Amino acid sequence: MTPTLGQTILDHASALARFSDMEDGLTCAFLTPAHRATQAQLVKWMEDAGMQVRIDAIGNVIGRYAADPAVTEPKVLMTGSHFDTVRNGGRYDGRLGILLPIVVVHALNVAGIRLPYHFDIVGFAEEEGLRFKTSFLASSVLAGRFDEALLDREDADGITMRDALGAAAFPGAADPAALRAAAVDPATLAGFVEVHIEQGPVLLNRGLPLGIVTQIAGSSRFQVRVEGLASHAGTTPMDMRRDAATGAAEMTLLVESRCAQVPTLVGTVGQLQVPNGSSNVIPGACVFSMDIRAGEDGIREAAIADILAGIQSIAARRGLTATVDRVTPVNNAPCARWLMDQLGAVLKKRGLEAFELPSGAGHDAMMMQRITDVAMLFVRCGNGGISHNPLETITAEDAQLAAETFVDFLRHFRADRTN
Amino acid sequence: MTPTLGQTILDHASALARFSDMEDGLTCAFLTPAHRATQAQLVKWMEDAGMQVRIDAIGNVIGRYAADPAVTEPKVLMTGSHFDTVRNGGRYDGRLGILLPIVVVHALNVAGIRLPYHFDIVGFAEEEGLRFKTSFLASSVLAGRFDEALLDREDADGITMRDALGAAAFPGAADPAALRAAAVDPATLAGFVEVHIEQGPVLLNRGLPLGIVTQIAGSSRFQVRVEGLASHAGTTPMDMRRDAATGAAEMTLLVESRCAQVPTLVGTVGQLQVPNGSSNVIPGACVFSMDIRAGEDGIREAAIADILAGIQSIAARRGLTATVDRVTPVNNAPCARWLMDQLGAVLKKRGLEAFELPSGAGHDAMMMQRITDVAMLFVRCGNGGISHNPLETITAEDAQLAAETFVDFLRHFRADRTN
Repeated sequence: MTPTLGQTILDHASALARFSDMEDGLTCAFLTPAHRATQAQLVKWMEDAGMQVRIDAIGNVIGRYAADPAVTEPKVLMTGSHFDTVRNGGRYDGRLGILLPIVVVHALNVAGIRLPYHFDIVGFAEEEGLRFKTSFLASSVLAGRFDEALLDREDADGITMRDALGAAAFPGAADPAALRAAAVDPATLAGFVEVHIEQGPVLLNRGLPLGIVTQIAGSSRFQVRVEGLASHAGTTPMDMRRDAATGAAEMTLLVESRCAQVPTLVGTVGQLQVPNGSSNVIPGACVFSMDIRAGEDGIREAAIADILAGIQSIAARRGLTATVDRVTPVNNAPCARWLMDQLGAVLKKRGLEAFELPSGAGHDAMMMQRITDVAMLFVRCGNGGISHNPLETITAEDAQLAAETFVDFLRHFRADRTN
Repeated sequence: MTPTLGQTILDHASALARFSDMEDGLTCAFLTPAHRATQAQLVKWMEDAGMQVRIDAIGNVIGRYAADPAVTEPKVLMTGSHFDTVRNGGRYDGRLGILLPIVVVHALNVAGIRLPYHFDIVGFAEEEGLRFKTSFLASSVLAGRFDEALLDREDADGITMRDALGAAAFPGAADPAALRAAAVDPATLAGFVEVHIEQGPVLLNRGLPLGIVTQIAGSSRFQVRVEGLASHAGTTPMDMRRDAATGAAEMTLLVESRCAQVPTLVGTVGQLQVPNGSSNVIPGACVFSMDIRAGEDGIREAAIADILAGIQSIAARRGLTATVDRVTPVNNAPCARWLMDQLGAVLKKRGLEAFELPSGAGHDAMMMQRITDVAMLFVRCGNGGISHNPLETITAEDAQLAAETFVDFLRHFRADRTN
């Protein structure tokens, strides 16, 4: 392999980061002009790499590196990740898992190497949930699990998903039948293997460039509305207050302290607001989100039970009411041992540790796991492991190593679950 | 006096509450259509009561019940309060101090009673600071202390105060020279006496209908911005986080606990927000307001010193930065003993206790105290003393008693600071 694969991946990520919904940072929300420009660039790179490319009804860019013509009825090995971002996010989150395989296919194609299976790279159009406050839109279409009711959902400007898709004018966009038809037939799939930046500090702290994911942590999300009694900030004695914000503050600290008790457990209040707050009015309401995850469903559920009970206890003591809406939870998605073992064998052959770790973040592989076996290869995240932040970074050396490992994996891949 | 004064005051307050910027509640922000309708109604009621009425350059409605013609060079005794409201506020806050004097003048006029001084009622156009996030606009014009730089300030829709005043087209509106000319000559004033709902529970808890204010508590307001590091909610371990929201939560609880240590001290975080928060991103920033008040400036300043030090200590421990902007503080405004004594004498003559209490809330009298002696008569607040809330209420009996007391005060008033 040429030693420039890693740098090419980084250069491509830089080039994509120039398409942004914001100045001085990277935001790429579903179906914005920046998103369309990113999509078009991915099509071009896939075509340059020697792939047949199409865009499906939700906007996924799907490139196929066709199997060796000598193979009859080839299966499909799928890889990919998302090209949308969070607000002011990092340039590798998601995109690494598209750009790395493209660069790898380009190298295989130049070298005249054909694989005994179709190799499909998917640039998933939506995973983060930024624009329509619902995530995994793109992978849910491929997995045949798209909720058509979401077409009526509006973004912050009141534009429905249906209208946004209609304006994008992909073949079949906004057509429920076309969205259903875009689902992949699971029988054709050999599996789904996603490359992703770790988005955490585990590999960095262990001095390892790559890791094999054991499972993708489920998450439980909640929206909490605390209600008290708005009254005058100057005249209401402290002991007569029913202040929704101080109640929410105490609940926020409860999430933090409870989740600090178990190493793999994390809990986050990411949204927090006194609606229409005035500096001279005691808050009558406060709303916040809670996101709770753990390596094991049992640990997560125990924390949730404690936190929900604690919220009600805080509310009762303070004369408040707390209404908790649970957003549909996502269960842990285990990776397939046979795929993990094939990744591990490649790493060991290169003299690397086949280190296994869970993923705290959700990934497209989580949705694909509903229809096929999945695995994930994590690449070390620099800057202390920060992600969802412009400081997210990887090195060219790690990208090179990941690309070379992925080439090895592809060349040795056998769709044999019993190996 | 007829026994219907109290009910008339309540009926007028109900009638005004129908002019609102919102459905199902009372919001009357500076220069909105509801505000203009309220202003027009006040003009009509003042004229019906036998007053000469004008609107000044900031939109104040100023009615004069002219002195007995036999008196040469009469002084002006001024009363009044504001007719703007907070969002979803109460119908008596401010308005009681306009409607009660109007009803009283109407009764005096019907009875053919003239006073030995001009009696001016001011409906102040702005006190709450809702629209332009700066309060006491109307009284600062009368007090000759209007900050002309505020004309460039924009509301939430980007409309400048200059344009809003220009659209209102009061005589001289938006003209800095006219705003300056609208100042009252302090030499003409005998004093300023404001009637106001207590907006707190003190009179209610003591079973007293009326009280005399000793001083209006100063307030110190701050805007705090906490900054940490945005990162991924699923992958960043709890002990590696620099979460601005949990830091702000701890600071919010510090304000609460410190201010609970002294009975007359109150501290409020009324605005609290993670800007652009996402449920799956650890907050990189959180902003909140602090409003701290006390009956004594020294108690307030001691609490502020502790809280500001505590905020920095919390920030340092959590790896956050906290930037604190202090909004111009308002010092305590003492009421004039000679005016308090005249109010007290009237109460005692009616067999009522001349109970004295400080005001925790700011009032127009606070600004007027810069140019003349002031006093305030508080009327008992029902529903536990709640204000800045639709539940704010007074009884017709208390309104009646306040009106009768105010008539007595006016008929016995002597502009003699040595009595």
